[in-house]
Formats: sequence, C-alpha cells, structure tokens
Amino acid sequence: MINQHYLDMLSHKSVIRELSEYATARGREIGYDNVFDFSLGNPSVPAPQSFTDTAVRLLQTMDPVSLHGYSPSLGLADVKAAVADSLNRRFHMEYGPEHIFPTSGCAGALAHALRAVTVPGSEVLVFAPFFPEYVPYINDTGAQIRVVPALPPKFQANLEALEEMLSCNVAAVLINSPNNPSGVVYTEDTLTKLSRILKRKSGEYGHHIFLISDEPYREIAFDGQKIPYPAQFYDDTLTCYSFSKSLSVPGERIGYVAVSPRAEHAEQLCAVCGQISRGIGHNCPSSLIQRAMAGAVDDTADLSVYETNMNLLYSVFRNLGFEVQRPGGTFYIMPKALEPDAAAFCRKALKYDLVFVPCEGFHAPGYFRVAYCIDTEKVKRSIPVIERFVKEQYQ
Amino acid sequence: MINQHYLDMLSHKSVIRELSEYATARGREIGYDNVFDFSLGNPSVPAPQSFTDTAVRLLQTMDPVSLHGYSPSLGLADVKAAVADSLNRRFHMEYGPEHIFPTSGCAGALAHALRAVTVPGSEVLVFAPFFPEYVPYINDTGAQIRVVPALPPKFQANLEALEEMLSCNVAAVLINSPNNPSGVVYTEDTLTKLSRILKRKSGEYGHHIFLISDEPYREIAFDGQKIPYPAQFYDDTLTCYSFSKSLSVPGERIGYVAVSPRAEHAEQLCAVCGQISRGIGHNCPSSLIQRAMAGAVDDTADLSVYETNMNLLYSVFRNLGFEVQRPGGTFYIMPKALEPDAAAFCRKALKYDLVFVPCEGFHAPGYFRVAYCIDTEKVKRSIPVIERFVKEQYQ
Repeated sequence: MINQHYLDMLSHKSVIRELSEYATARGREIGYDNVFDFSLGNPSVPAPQSFTDTAVRLLQTMDPVSLHGYSPSLGLADVKAAVADSLNRRFHMEYGPEHIFPTSGCAGALAHALRAVTVPGSEVLVFAPFFPEYVPYINDTGAQIRVVPALPPKFQANLEALEEMLSCNVAAVLINSPNNPSGVVYTEDTLTKLSRILKRKSGEYGHHIFLISDEPYREIAFDGQKIPYPAQFYDDTLTCYSFSKSLSVPGERIGYVAVSPRAEHAEQLCAVCGQISRGIGHNCPSSLIQRAMAGAVDDTADLSVYETNMNLLYSVFRNLGFEVQRPGGTFYIMPKALEPDAAAFCRKALKYDLVFVPCEGFHAPGYFRVAYCIDTEKVKRSIPVIERFVKEQYQ
Repeated sequence: MINQHYLDMLSHKSVIRELSEYATARGREIGYDNVFDFSLGNPSVPAPQSFTDTAVRLLQTMDPVSLHGYSPSLGLADVKAAVADSLNRRFHMEYGPEHIFPTSGCAGALAHALRAVTVPGSEVLVFAPFFPEYVPYINDTGAQIRVVPALPPKFQANLEALEEMLSCNVAAVLINSPNNPSGVVYTEDTLTKLSRILKRKSGEYGHHIFLISDEPYREIAFDGQKIPYPAQFYDDTLTCYSFSKSLSVPGERIGYVAVSPRAEHAEQLCAVCGQISRGIGHNCPSSLIQRAMAGAVDDTADLSVYETNMNLLYSVFRNLGFEVQRPGGTFYIMPKALEPDAAAFCRKALKYDLVFVPCEGFHAPGYFRVAYCIDTEKVKRSIPVIERFVKEQYQ
C-alpha cells in the first residue's frame, strides 16, 4: 500500500521546477549561456573561506571519533553558544545556547517551529505573497494554512486583513522578510503594528499567538539598510534561519530555530523541538557542518553581486514601464506582468529564452518573479533581450 | 500554545539517556576511566581515511558553488549510483540510482519509508526486542506500532505470533537484523519463512505488505559470517541504512532508503519519499557528506574491536552462568538478568560502576543490554568487576 496522499502530490509538479527543467533542457539545445534562467533561488557565489578553512582544519586535526560523533539531540553546545552570541551582538537579544536549536536548513527549522506551537486542526496565517512550499510545510503538520491577501503595490503585511482573519483557532502567524518572491522588507512600522495586534489578540483569546519568522534572506540587505529583526518587536517569536544564502551553502542544510528568551515557554521550546525530531527523523544537522558554520558564523559570502543585479533589473523594469517595488533584500524582484495573466506573459518571455516564474503559486496572481542570483554579466546580456521582448509583444 | 503532546513526551525520559547521564556525572566524580559505561551505542573507532580524504579533497579542489549547492531533492545522482553499485556487487541486487534515496541517517530513512507505505490508522508490526525509538518513529506518522512478542532464548523473529497478528490493517513489518539490543542476526531460514508468510497474506488481503528492514549494523558481522540481506528474500522491501556504524560517522547523519527494484511501485517510491521530505523538513543530507560517503562507500572503519569485545563479554557472561545468546553482529549483547526485575539488577550493578541498560523499553523484560563499543582495554578491566558484582550479589 503506497500512501496515496504523496502519490497525489507527485502529480502536482512545481511550476518553478518545471521552468527550471525547461531552462536546463533548452540550455542543452542552444548553450546554457544563451538561456536567461531567472527561475531558481540558488546562491551563485562561493562560500566564505572561513567556512572551508574551518571544515578542512577540523577534518585534518580533530579526533575523528569526536568530530563525527553524535551531536547531543539539541545540538552542539559550543555551536549553539556561537549562534546565540552572534545574534545577541547584532540584534541586541539575550539568547542563551539553550534558546538555539540547530536544524537542517530553514525547511528543518520550520518543520520544528510549526509543530512546536500548533496542534492538528489549528490555523497558521501566512501573508501573501509567500514561498509555495509553505503549503506542505504547514499542512503536513496537521495544522491548516490560511492566506492573508497581498497588499500591492508595496507588499507590506496586510494588517487589516490579518485582524479580520485572526480567531482563537489561530496558533501562529508565519512571516518572511526579506520576502521571497517580492524582495520586500517589512518596516519597523509594520512589525510594531503587527506585534500590537498579536499581543492584543493573544490577550483576548487567552493564549499566546506565536510569530514564526522565516529569515533565510536576512543578510542580503540592500542600500546599506539594517533589516528589522522581528523578535525584537514581538516576544513570542520563533526565528527560523538558514545559512544557505548568507554562507552560500544551501546543499549543506544548516540553520536553526532561535526561541526568543521572552517567549512563553521559552525554557522548554528547544526541548520540545528535540521531541519533534524523534517523530520526523531529524536528529541534528551534520556535526562537521555545524562546526564549520560556527567557524564562519559572523561571515557571509560576498553577497554584493545580488545588489548589483537588483539595481540593473529594477532600472530596466522601471524604464520599461512595469509596476514594480524596489527590493530591500533577497535575490528576487517581482514586477507586475504586462497582461493580467502572468503565466501567459511568462510563456511569451520563454520565446526569448527569458525564464521568469509566474506568481500565481505565491498568491500574487498577475505578478512574476525574477531570481537574479546569477552572474552580473548574464544579467547585463539579458537587458536588451528583455527590452526587445517587451517592445515586440507589448508596445 | 505549545503543543502538549511533545511536552508530555519530554516528561518520559529515556532510560538509556538517564543512565548515560548518570555515567557521565559519576565519571566526573571518580574519573570516567573508572566507570564501565556500557549504556550508549556510540561508535568508538575512527572513520576510515577514505572518508576524511574525500571530504578534504572536495573542500580544497571542487568549485564551492557546486560542492555546497542544493542537491536535487532526490539526492545527488552520482552518489545514488555509487550506493546502488555497491549494493548490487555485494548483495546481487539490481538497484539503479533511481531506487536509492539518500537520507539523514537511519532515523531519516525510517521517517520516509514508514510514511511511504502506511496511512494514518494502519498498523506496523515490530518484532521484540526492538530499539525503543521505533515507538515515536512509527506513531508520529499516524500509523500504530504493534509489538510481536519476543522469542527467547534465540530471539529469531516470532513468526507464529506474527501470523496471528497480521490483518488487512497491517501496512508494513519492520525488522532489524543484526538486532539492537540482542545482537541476533536473522537466519536465511527465518527470512525465507517470513517472506513466505508476507507473500501469502499480501495475496489474501489484496495489497502488498511492505517489509521495512532497518540495517544500521549490517557491516558489523562476527565469525566471518555474511548477514542475510532481507531484500533478497522478499520483493516488497525498503532497506533503511545508515553509515553511522560502518563509517563511524553517526553525527554526520548519512544513510539511505533502498527500494527493491522488484517492489510494488518500485519506480515511484523514491519520488514519494521526495514528497514526504517536503512535509517533514528533510531536503537531503549535506551535499559534502553525501559525496564523502560515496568516496568511502565500500570501506568501513576498523570494526574488529567490536568482535574482540563481544568474545570477551560473551565468555564472561557464559562462565558466570547467564542465559545469553551469542551475538552474530552489532556491538550489543543481551544477557538475561539474574533476577526477574532487570531494572533492579541494573541498579545493583551501578553500585559497582557497571552501567547496563534494562531491556523493559526494548520489550525484553528480564534482560539487559550491554553496549560494548568501548576500548577493549576497558572491557578487560570490567571483567573482574562483573565477576565481583555477580559473586557478591547473586552467589
């Protein structure tokens, strides 16, 4: 008996993956250099040398039985301390090692955070636009995703709609700033108001509504701005982080849940995550990778290419008359398509070997996502092609 | 709202962990060298040089963007091929890369295999004695564990009891050979008969009952014997493997599910595992660790210490009159306690700084587990202490 639920999931292929596979296949035909593949959010810069050096040093000098031995089920103590210290220095928090739970990337972090503060049948509110994987991430816990409609053109959190949708069945609100797919950063004003609403409603319902903050793009911030840190604004916050983008090591699956020391049950939540691991087969990220991350915890890869690319693309889309919000971070931009059906728009773009992703699945119909984690040289070459596409198809 | 289910789990502390923590604390008092800690199943030998060398070479020479990039969601193709080839050579199977799903150790493998072939409410039968973590592994999928009673003194699978407990609600049978905690290896005869029963019952019920074979100890085989490979005996087999013991890298979390090419739905089961990953936050093991494993896929750490230790301990327990089955593999032995209450027996042993684990939680009440993945020198020093303990307490 194969589980039919997962078989059914198989038949719903991800639009992003289909486009990416198309781009790869097309690359085999005409050379991948000639395909302007803006489909995938794959970091394109090397990991910082400190990550590589730490890993090599440990492999060459540390006792292999200790190096490769089991982590304690809540993670390596010195690694947790290094993460806590780094967050405290940078965001004026007061995390102890006991508030940090190392995970296999953000997917692992969300799998734990969501199960820790929801029960089957409860609801998790998510602001559109959002990463489509949130649907299985949430629904496979037994809780239910509910989508708070997007608020164009700036795509800050739609707090009016949130207030209407909150009920005593809501266990958590999931946010993602800087945002995939829009690149938008939630302002201090947005986070202050969001916090005020959640505090008031938590009081009304007599239970704490948790904020789950998914922050894999936190270190990719543009214009020298500091990304507001949601846990500074709301006490009941579980911060889910991945080093995939900051250290450019997405395949190494390393991240964490940071439990705000001011959260309800703060002293128990990491231990609860440890129990959750038992049921979902998690058991800590790789010991070597945990330690290599700790050796590079304050570093990042050279992320400046993403800002360079953003500026180029923002200009070209603006100049061509697109309605588009300037990203504050990430390596995405989300212009409005030049016709109501963004899928049709993206199909036309494909004829020019421009691979854009329509944002229907991100709950931003009519918009498309451009992932610019590619070489700047290729972005530059894409500009005349984008101009020709728009001119021939829409002018 | 913290999830009460996991909070409740927190209050049920693992006996193994408590004993291990006791041993560590006692070690701080009297020196860890003086504590005969047989509580934990932690490999105690270094990883093979090929593993370390592969990892260092990749870190020093491979393009970091490729090395640390996302794995495809079903794993790295060349890694899957290396695993398939190795299994085919050694067990005369016909796996292709498409039948191998890399996972974060056996816990990750079981999390996927169990979800792939059960549905909530269905049953998974497990032969006692078994690793207590099977309870959360199975029950947190929504399926229900049911325990087939142990068959002392040899602890082969209790096939008579199995037949009685099989029903059309049984989705899978989970076996573990060589076995934790008994060290027993299921014979070809056992596997042949088990296969015959499952085939017959699958026919009767009109659906395929899957065999999930948990094999982390497969390479630790004693007396030069070859461990029978369950997938050779039964077509609908999902083999769950971890390199934790064979490569002595338990903290690196690397293993796989191997889907028998002859299994029902063989061509879909790895893709189904990929869908399961989305809900449980798995997303492939570390790319670096996958590749380092592939570079050492046919190697093992020097596992001979475990056989040396087994021979020493088997002799001492036999000579002292214990009822005990000679292990065929693993680094465990499971004698019968010298009084009916094995917990009381183990408490008395603790006074001699002998840390044994009572097997109530393994569903072998009256027995205790001795994990001998420690230095042979320490095993030798423990022998007069075991003798004194037995003499003073039971003779």
